[in-house]
Amino acid sequence: MSYLRKVIECIPNFSTSDRKVVEAILDEIRRIQDARLLDYTFDGYYNRLVVSFVGDEDSVLQAALNSATKAIALIDMNKHKGQHPRLGAVDVVPFVPIRNATMEDCVEFARAFGRGLAEAHHIPIYLYGEAASRPEAEDIDWVRQGEYEGLHEMMKRPGREPDFGPNEPHQTAGATIVGARRIMVGFNVNLGTPNLEVARRVARAVHGKKGGLTDVRAMAAMIPEKDMTQIGMSIGDFKKTPLYHVLELVKIEAERYGAPIVGAEFCGLVPLQALIDVAKHYLEVEELEEDRIIEIAAQKALEQT
Amino acid sequence: MSYLRKVIECIPNFSTSDRKVVEAILDEIRRIQDARLLDYTFDGYYNRLVVSFVGDEDSVLQAALNSATKAIALIDMNKHKGQHPRLGAVDVVPFVPIRNATMEDCVEFARAFGRGLAEAHHIPIYLYGEAASRPEAEDIDWVRQGEYEGLHEMMKRPGREPDFGPNEPHQTAGATIVGARRIMVGFNVNLGTPNLEVARRVARAVHGKKGGLTDVRAMAAMIPEKDMTQIGMSIGDFKKTPLYHVLELVKIEAERYGAPIVGAEFCGLVPLQALIDVAKHYLEVEELEEDRIIEIAAQKALEQT
Repeated sequence: MSYLRKVIECIPNFSTSDRKVVEAILDEIRRIQDARLLDYTFDGYYNRLVVSFVGDEDSVLQAALNSATKAIALIDMNKHKGQHPRLGAVDVVPFVPIRNATMEDCVEFARAFGRGLAEAHHIPIYLYGEAASRPEAEDIDWVRQGEYEGLHEMMKRPGREPDFGPNEPHQTAGATIVGARRIMVGFNVNLGTPNLEVARRVARAVHGKKGGLTDVRAMAAMIPEKDMTQIGMSIGDFKKTPLYHVLELVKIEAERYGAPIVGAEFCGLVPLQALIDVAKHYLEVEELEEDRIIEIAAQKALEQT
Repeated sequence: MSYLRKVIECIPNFSTSDRKVVEAILDEIRRIQDARLLDYTFDGYYNRLVVSFVGDEDSVLQAALNSATKAIALIDMNKHKGQHPRLGAVDVVPFVPIRNATMEDCVEFARAFGRGLAEAHHIPIYLYGEAASRPEAEDIDWVRQGEYEGLHEMMKRPGREPDFGPNEPHQTAGATIVGARRIMVGFNVNLGTPNLEVARRVARAVHGKKGGLTDVRAMAAMIPEKDMTQIGMSIGDFKKTPLYHVLELVKIEAERYGAPIVGAEFCGLVPLQALIDVAKHYLEVEELEEDRIIEIAAQKALEQT
């Protein structure tokens, strides 16, 4: 692949944690030449699969359409339960500019993908994020209000028409939210308490729209097999709201209820700058640019020669 | 440059902090095609310049020889004072394998460079680290015993013959230590006290050979213009001895004397894994591989296609 071609990341979220369905979806991405599967995570308690892949425009479009088609064929939302809010089998498909691509490219790309998916499967598509066609829809929480169970009612309301596809839910796949956004960080912190109410209070305290940290979304979930709870978060702008702010605020709030932090995990991929900012903070290092990292510096040097 | 060529990093340390001399040395590296200057730092209190550059074998050899030649021409060790131990104008020249190169390559390379420098300038060369020709010389502190001022006497002792060049110091440039090593981390922590004795005690506490952390070298220095002291450290194996161990141990020891940490800095480049380990520790993340970083994952994906 040429170093000048546009590289786009796609991070589709599917409403399943069934291993066979997961593999069938992943295979649709793996079989596309020039698309590269980077990461995937799925959990029973969210009953959700988050996949990340990159490629040029053609291969990303093909991999996104094929994997969505497989998910729509295999997932029946009427039987789906899970702790993460969702609107459909292919719940959300964001596109992120990685290299030589602009946000405008990804917005255009999201519209093309959304239109294609709607036509192929007669499924309603809502555009969100930078691709939103109305201001409220920039916020995915607004789009997802009422979830799959409330979708039929929600779609009847004025101002809730989909951007593409029919004005009623797909019978088994609900609706799909498609958009463009910047890189964001998925960061889940586990609390050593099975008390979901405690986790909910902690989540509320850090949630951006509830007085917490800017552009942070936080939700509480039970992890039954571990007898603990989890604060599942996404950080919209990790430069403005560094990860150590998020962790330290969760820690402070959880301490009020005597709940320790017993581990954390990233959901999906992590931007390098987010890790650099964490290392800088805790090591008390004042200056540390990406170019000071050996591997990055050597890579850039190689590309110049 | 082909992605299959050997990439070697060279991190020469020169005994100067004179801006004109610094620039003259750097220019010798900049003018070599296919060598890339990655980083340099110099400080008056160490009176030392640490440079980092990468390239393929030919360009690194040329840049190392030319910059050393310039330093030998411009630096007079008889007038040199500085808080960092040193043996000569070109104090130490380590080579580090970065890509497609092995440690054996770098050992051979160090010997070729040492022989070339000795022949060109009639300067004694001591091999150290992985390139050492005797076990004691694996430890750079052993080679540097007595420093420049004691070099003449030291060289008369049995078992102290140089590996290449004459058996007496160069009149203005002393001797040069040349070797091969793995990537290591230079990490300096500033203490909010001007008391050098306190800094020395903290340095001793973390120094590997004095009961501190494995493969960590630590020295105390005064930073007169800031009215503070610095613990200058190198961490030989940052995977075995992570940076957060180093920082937290310095913090604990300094606290005994009421001295706060007032900042830190990296000297030279930092390996990505060292930063990942710091982020993992403080964020309490259990798993985080290099491949989960977007930029690295995307780069690898691109190289495969």
